[in-house]
Amino acid sequence: MSDKTADRVERVRSAEDLSRDQREISISEFFEKNRHLLGYDNKVKALLTVVREAVDNSLDACETARIVPDIKVSVKLVSGMKDRYVISVEDNGPGIVKQNIGRVFGKLLFGSKFHKLLQSRGQQGIGISGAVLYSQLTSGKPAKIVTSTGDGKTHCMDLMIDTFKNEPEIIKEDVREGKNWHGVKIELEAEGKYVEHQQSISEYLKQTALSNPYAEIIYDSPDGKIKFERSVKTLPEEPKSIKPHPHGVEIGILRRMLRTTEARTLTGFFTTDFSRVGQSSAKEIIRLAKFGEDVNPKNIDGPQVEKLFQAVQQVQLIKPPLDCLSPLREKLIEEGLKKQLKPEYVVAITRPPDVYRGNPFQIEVGVAYGGELPPDSVAALYRFANRVPLMYQAGDCALAKAVSEIEWRRYGLEQASGAALPTGPIAIFVHIASVWVPFTSESKEAIASYPEIIKEVKLALQEAGRKLSIYVNKKRRAGEAALRMSLFEKYIPEVADALARLSGAEKGKIAAKLENMLKKGKVVIEDTEEPEKPAGKEDDA
Amino acid sequence: MSDKTADRVERVRSAEDLSRDQREISISEFFEKNRHLLGYDNKVKALLTVVREAVDNSLDACETARIVPDIKVSVKLVSGMKDRYVISVEDNGPGIVKQNIGRVFGKLLFGSKFHKLLQSRGQQGIGISGAVLYSQLTSGKPAKIVTSTGDGKTHCMDLMIDTFKNEPEIIKEDVREGKNWHGVKIELEAEGKYVEHQQSISEYLKQTALSNPYAEIIYDSPDGKIKFERSVKTLPEEPKSIKPHPHGVEIGILRRMLRTTEARTLTGFFTTDFSRVGQSSAKEIIRLAKFGEDVNPKNIDGPQVEKLFQAVQQVQLIKPPLDCLSPLREKLIEEGLKKQLKPEYVVAITRPPDVYRGNPFQIEVGVAYGGELPPDSVAALYRFANRVPLMYQAGDCALAKAVSEIEWRRYGLEQASGAALPTGPIAIFVHIASVWVPFTSESKEAIASYPEIIKEVKLALQEAGRKLSIYVNKKRRAGEAALRMSLFEKYIPEVADALARLSGAEKGKIAAKLENMLKKGKVVIEDTEEPEKPAGKEDDA
Repeated sequence: MSDKTADRVERVRSAEDLSRDQREISISEFFEKNRHLLGYDNKVKALLTVVREAVDNSLDACETARIVPDIKVSVKLVSGMKDRYVISVEDNGPGIVKQNIGRVFGKLLFGSKFHKLLQSRGQQGIGISGAVLYSQLTSGKPAKIVTSTGDGKTHCMDLMIDTFKNEPEIIKEDVREGKNWHGVKIELEAEGKYVEHQQSISEYLKQTALSNPYAEIIYDSPDGKIKFERSVKTLPEEPKSIKPHPHGVEIGILRRMLRTTEARTLTGFFTTDFSRVGQSSAKEIIRLAKFGEDVNPKNIDGPQVEKLFQAVQQVQLIKPPLDCLSPLREKLIEEGLKKQLKPEYVVAITRPPDVYRGNPFQIEVGVAYGGELPPDSVAALYRFANRVPLMYQAGDCALAKAVSEIEWRRYGLEQASGAALPTGPIAIFVHIASVWVPFTSESKEAIASYPEIIKEVKLALQEAGRKLSIYVNKKRRAGEAALRMSLFEKYIPEVADALARLSGAEKGKIAAKLENMLKKGKVVIEDTEEPEKPAGKEDDA
Repeated sequence: MSDKTADRVERVRSAEDLSRDQREISISEFFEKNRHLLGYDNKVKALLTVVREAVDNSLDACETARIVPDIKVSVKLVSGMKDRYVISVEDNGPGIVKQNIGRVFGKLLFGSKFHKLLQSRGQQGIGISGAVLYSQLTSGKPAKIVTSTGDGKTHCMDLMIDTFKNEPEIIKEDVREGKNWHGVKIELEAEGKYVEHQQSISEYLKQTALSNPYAEIIYDSPDGKIKFERSVKTLPEEPKSIKPHPHGVEIGILRRMLRTTEARTLTGFFTTDFSRVGQSSAKEIIRLAKFGEDVNPKNIDGPQVEKLFQAVQQVQLIKPPLDCLSPLREKLIEEGLKKQLKPEYVVAITRPPDVYRGNPFQIEVGVAYGGELPPDSVAALYRFANRVPLMYQAGDCALAKAVSEIEWRRYGLEQASGAALPTGPIAIFVHIASVWVPFTSESKEAIASYPEIIKEVKLALQEAGRKLSIYVNKKRRAGEAALRMSLFEKYIPEVADALARLSGAEKGKIAAKLENMLKKGKVVIEDTEEPEKPAGKEDDA
C-alpha cells in the first residue's frame, strides 16, 4: 500500500465522486442492454426465441398439470411495417392465478422451477419475461395476456416491465365472465425477420414435435398453416423433484442450508434436507466432524462449516435417486426418426442415468442411416435438452463436441480428419435429460462441457455406432458380393464353354444351370478381403 | 382455447399449486447456480477469473482517479489443503468510501459504470462481487477488504453475500487510524488449480502489461515473483462519458427516457438528453412527428411514442462524438509487440472510430513477423477489449472470426484452407475500444459478431497485411536473389575461363573482377518470375 500523500485532497474527492455514481442495476436493465445474452442478437433469431420461450412455458405448464398439450402458435407481419411481427402462443394448460400474472410475465428472475431439482424446460425464471422485455424494447407495446384457471373467469391483462424496478407495470386489466376454459394466451409485438431456413421457427416446431410426440401444435406462419399432430396420446411419466445430494453440495451452499433449515438437530438436518442420507450415514458424518448429534444446525458457522463439509466428503453414499428423470426412451426416438427422416436403418440408445456435480442426468442418442437422407452431405445433428430442441451455438456445445470426437470411421462411415461430424446419409439425435441442465448461457442454446456429460454421450454413440456398423458393413458386403456376382454372370458363357469341353456336357445346359444357381444364391462369391476387425470399445471414451 | 370442463376442479388446484411454488430468484442465487456464466467453469479458469476481476477493478479505479497504477497480485496455496488458494490484489487507487464497501463487493449488479456510456473495463457491476460469490461458495470464507481514501482512516471489513437477498452481510468490521495511504486490498480464499499454460495468470498479466504499459504489476505467484515494470509514465487520455445517440436508441428506451427525463419540453428533451441533436434537428423531429415543441415529454405514451420514434429515424444526424474513446494508438502497440515478442518486423493500424447500434467503437490491430516468433506454428492471436486481454472462447469471438476470414495468402503468408489463422512466424494483436463492449457472456471472454465490428477488424488487418506483404515479399525476393547469386558465384571460375578464352584476357583477373562486382551488388540477378499482382483492396471486406 502506497504511502504517498501529496495528492490526497484531490483523491479524496475522487473516491467520493466515484461513490456518487455507484448504484444498483436492475436485472431488467441488465438484460435490456445485454439482450443478446437471452438469444435476441439478431432479428431472425429473436423471432424464434420469442416463440421458443412461450412454447416451452406452455409445454411445462401442461405437463405439470398433467394435461395433454394443445398449442397454437401464430406469427404474422404487422401490416404496413417492415420487420415487425405479432407473435401469439396459446395453450390449454392450467392457467395462471390472477395475483401471479404480472410477475410471471413482467418480472425477470421469477418462477417456480429455479429452487427445485426437477426435470423441466424452464429453470431460470427469465425466459418468458425476457421475451416481454424484448418485445417492449423493440415495439414499445405491452404484452397482452389472456388466461383462465377454469373457474369461469377470464383475465385479460396488458402489461409492460418497469425496467428500473424489474416489476410489472399493468397498463390495462379486465375480467370477463362466463366462458369455461383453462389455459394461457400471450401476444407480443416485436421486431423480427421471418426466414425459412435450418434454424427457422417451423424447423424448431418440427423438432419439438419429434421430442414431444404427445403434443399437438398448430402453427399459423406468415406462409400458411402447418399442423403437427400428436402421435402418442399419453403424457410421459411425471418427473419427480429431488433433494440435493450431499456430494454435489458446495461448502457455501452447505453453510446456507445450515442457516435456513427447519431441522433442529444435525441428524435431522442431514436426513430430511438431503437425498440418500439415512440415520447411520448422518451419524457417521457427525461423528467424523466431531459434533454432537443434537447440535442445532443454526449454531454451526465459520470454520465449523468446513469441518462438517470435509466429513461429508469422507462418507460413502449411494448415488442420487435417478427416477427423477423422464427420458424419451429408445422406442420413441426410433419411431420419431423413422417418421420424420424416412431412413432405411435406425438405432437408438438410452443410457442409464449418471451424475455431474451432484445433478442426475441421462443421455440418449439416435442414429438414422440411408433411405431419404442426403447421401453426400455432412451428418445432420439434432440436439435436445429436456425435450427442447437446441437450434444455435452447436460449436460451443458439449453434445456436438462429443459427436465430433467419435471416430466414425471405425463404424464404416466417412469423416473428415480432425474432430468432425461424419459424412454420408446419416442423422444424429442427442438428448440430455437432467434436473439441472448446465447451459452455457441464459439463452439456453448449448450445453457446458462437463466431462461426465461428454463421456456419456460418447458411450451412447459408440454403442449406436457398433450396431450401425454391423448394418453398414453387411450392406457394403452385400453390395460387393452383388458386384462380383454380376461380373461372374458376364463370364458364364465362357465358363460354360470351358466346362462343356472338359466334361462333354452340353454348353447351353451348363450355362442355364450356372445362371440358376447364381439366382438361387447357391453360388456365393466369397469376400477375399481380410475379415474386418470387429468395432470394439474405443479407448478414448 | 379449449372448452373442456370435466377435470376442472383438479386443474384449478393445479394452477394454485403452481402459484404457490412461484417466487422471486435473487441474482446472487442465479449466478451461484450458474457460476460458469461468470467464468467459473473449472478450477484453473476460476483462479484466473478471480485475479482478472480484481485487477480490472483496480486499473479502472486508478484511471478514473487519474492515478498511475501500482498493482500487487498474490496467489498462494493454502497450506495443508488441495486445490485451495488465497488470492489477493492490492492497488494505489482512490479507495472506496465506507458506506459503499459492502455493496461494491457484496451485491451483484451494483456499480458506477453500467448507466454511463464510457470506455471502461468494468461495465456490468457483476465482476468483483461475482468473485466474492465464487469464493464463499467454494471456501465458505468471507472476503477481506482493506481500504482507505487517504483520510488517515483504514477500513477493514470481512464480508459475505447473503445470496437470498443479494445484499452484503458484514461479518467483521473495524477502523484503524494513523496510516496515510489510499487504495484497496481484497483477499479471497477459493477453490482453484494453478497451472502454467497459455491461459495462465502470468500470461494474462503479461498481456495486461502489454496493453496497459503505464501500470506496474508485481505478481507473487506460487512459483515466485515476477515484476512487470511500466514502460510509460503517464496515463492515456481520459475517456469521456457520452449521451446516447438517437439512432442507437430502441423504441422501448425512448419511451423510458421520455418518462424519466428532467426536461419539460420535447425540444429540451432531445437537445439535452441525447448527443448530436441541436435545436434545428430537434425541431425537425418534432415537426415530422406532428407534436408541439412545448409538449411535456412525460405526456407522450402509447402509439405517440412510435410516431416520435419513426420521426427520429427520418432525420439525418451526425455520427456520435468519437472523442469518448481512448485507443492504445499505433506507436504503443508496435513498441509493446517489439518488446514482448522480439520480431523482425512489426506494423500497427489504428482505425478511425465507427458506430454499432449507436455505440462508438474503435478497432486497432498489430502484426508482428519473424525474429524470435516460432516459424512453423499457427499464428498467436492476442485479443483485447478496453485494454483487457481476452483469454478464453476465441472460437466464439468476432475478433478471432475476422482474423480467420482474412485471405492471408494474399499477403504472402501460409494459411490452411477454409477460415483459419495464418501459419508462420506471426503474431496478431486486435483491440476493440468501446463505450459498451458487446460481450457474448457475463464472463466477458468473447465479442458478439456485429457486422460493423467484423468489418472494421478486417479493414485494419488488410491494411496491416498490405504493409506486411511488402516486407515479406521483399525479404523473399532478397532471399531468392541471394540464392541465385551464390549459384552464380559457384560458376565464376567456368565463366571466367570461357571469357578468358573469348577475350584473351587473363582468367584470374576476370574471376576477381566478377567476384568484386557481385560483392558490390553491381550484378543483380533479375527475378525471372512474373511480377506479382499488388495486394490490393479485398472485395470481401
